[in-house]
Amino acid sequence: MIVDVSKKILIVGLGLLGGSYARILKRFGFPISAITKEQSSIDYALKEGIIDTGATAIDETIIGEADLVIFALYPHVFVDWIAQNQHLLKSGAIITDVTGVKRSIVYQIQDMLREDVEFIAAHPMAGREVSGVENSTDKMFQGANYIVTPTDKNTPEAIHTCLELGRLLGFSNVTTLSPEDHDEMIGFLSQLTHCIAITLMTCNDKENMEKFTGDSFRDLTRIARINDLMWSELFVANKDVLLNQMDMFMDQFQKLKSMLETEDIDGMRKMMRHSTARRALFDKK
Amino acid sequence: MIVDVSKKILIVGLGLLGGSYARILKRFGFPISAITKEQSSIDYALKEGIIDTGATAIDETIIGEADLVIFALYPHVFVDWIAQNQHLLKSGAIITDVTGVKRSIVYQIQDMLREDVEFIAAHPMAGREVSGVENSTDKMFQGANYIVTPTDKNTPEAIHTCLELGRLLGFSNVTTLSPEDHDEMIGFLSQLTHCIAITLMTCNDKENMEKFTGDSFRDLTRIARINDLMWSELFVANKDVLLNQMDMFMDQFQKLKSMLETEDIDGMRKMMRHSTARRALFDKK
Repeated sequence: MIVDVSKKILIVGLGLLGGSYARILKRFGFPISAITKEQSSIDYALKEGIIDTGATAIDETIIGEADLVIFALYPHVFVDWIAQNQHLLKSGAIITDVTGVKRSIVYQIQDMLREDVEFIAAHPMAGREVSGVENSTDKMFQGANYIVTPTDKNTPEAIHTCLELGRLLGFSNVTTLSPEDHDEMIGFLSQLTHCIAITLMTCNDKENMEKFTGDSFRDLTRIARINDLMWSELFVANKDVLLNQMDMFMDQFQKLKSMLETEDIDGMRKMMRHSTARRALFDKK
Repeated sequence: MIVDVSKKILIVGLGLLGGSYARILKRFGFPISAITKEQSSIDYALKEGIIDTGATAIDETIIGEADLVIFALYPHVFVDWIAQNQHLLKSGAIITDVTGVKRSIVYQIQDMLREDVEFIAAHPMAGREVSGVENSTDKMFQGANYIVTPTDKNTPEAIHTCLELGRLLGFSNVTTLSPEDHDEMIGFLSQLTHCIAITLMTCNDKENMEKFTGDSFRDLTRIARINDLMWSELFVANKDVLLNQMDMFMDQFQKLKSMLETEDIDGMRKMMRHSTARRALFDKK
């Protein structure tokens, strides 16, 4: 056996991400259980055969049997869950997560967690504009990044297990970063990017613009359709980094505006050539 | 005959746009000539059968025979061309363009133009990240907008001809706007959008970011690969409108930043819900 399917996996929070985890891991033959709020999600997952058992409330048997627990919850819900239910976890269990910010979660969970359970954090960088287990897919992570963020408290074994999990899930790029490096990177590439999109989408309410909209504007505002509950929580959880990134962006935007005011064509062309050269680095390989 | 293919069409500037015009109009059977800088562009277009004749310098016969002349040039090159060569145009000819800004071009050309030739301006809102007639395609304008910007000096006949041209070219949406409304719309939907993309692409030169880049960042920076000569000219030509749009964007971005600083979750969620609702208007129909 290459994959040890005697390990029991529990997914807490069976939405788009948790559902996709279940769908993919089930193909390998793991026993999969789920705890989630809605009975309809459990019913759907059982019917699809992507979980073996499920519950909508705390279930001591399900939790106590799991070797690997994946939390696919909002950050504060995850923290509350651990505070209230960690005594039910199996001794020796490994737990991981999908949270989009790391510093504020990783140390808090590791500090409160029992000594005989290990939390190794991970961020699957994937999403869609739809939600729910009904939209989960086994292609969800193709082309995407999976970042494990270990700390001094983590063992090589748990880090290894978490990296293996990312590879089993089909991520194209599985890697590690410190929680600090992760949050700086995500502050720029994801959070600042969302800030810009929602600002562009809300800064001009002139009517009938949509009649003339082309692909450029649509591309810049695709992510302006946003889960307000989750993203406002993630922004605040990474506040220091994100504010710094917003300042960097505003400084550069102001520089461009000043060049336009003075009709500094050479300066604008220089910035555009810098932009063009740097964008080439970011093409899909 | 539904289409009057006795009309001779001249395209000045045989690049991506001019080449696509030629390719599509040739399918209807129009006699098409081209004047452009590079002999290789003429050779390619003749070999492909998308023009009947071409020249790399001013050609009195070609110009004097054309009933419809399409200028696919940079704005200042277009103005210079008219100043120097308009005496060669056929009496009764209609001329049109592809320029991305309108106020600064339309009135200037109409003011200097001979009485017996009419300029009706248009903006084909389409582009690609590649250039040259070799990349032209007959699918170039599917899903795109074609905006005719008439003034008091235009006749109903010329406006009608220009609208027909947009429809023959296969644009999905063919409409008219005043030069002023056009420039305000384009200042927001296209120019501000490009300003944001090049700012995001150049505000943080940290290395190795590309390893973690997902679709969101790629979407927001696709147009950060930009023709610096053309766009700096277009920005300056629409300076007053664009500066105003940049201010509107900065005010809203600053508002979001202030809410994050004070952890005003309700305020951020309200902006995100506004963003989500407004983005729905802009989905492709």
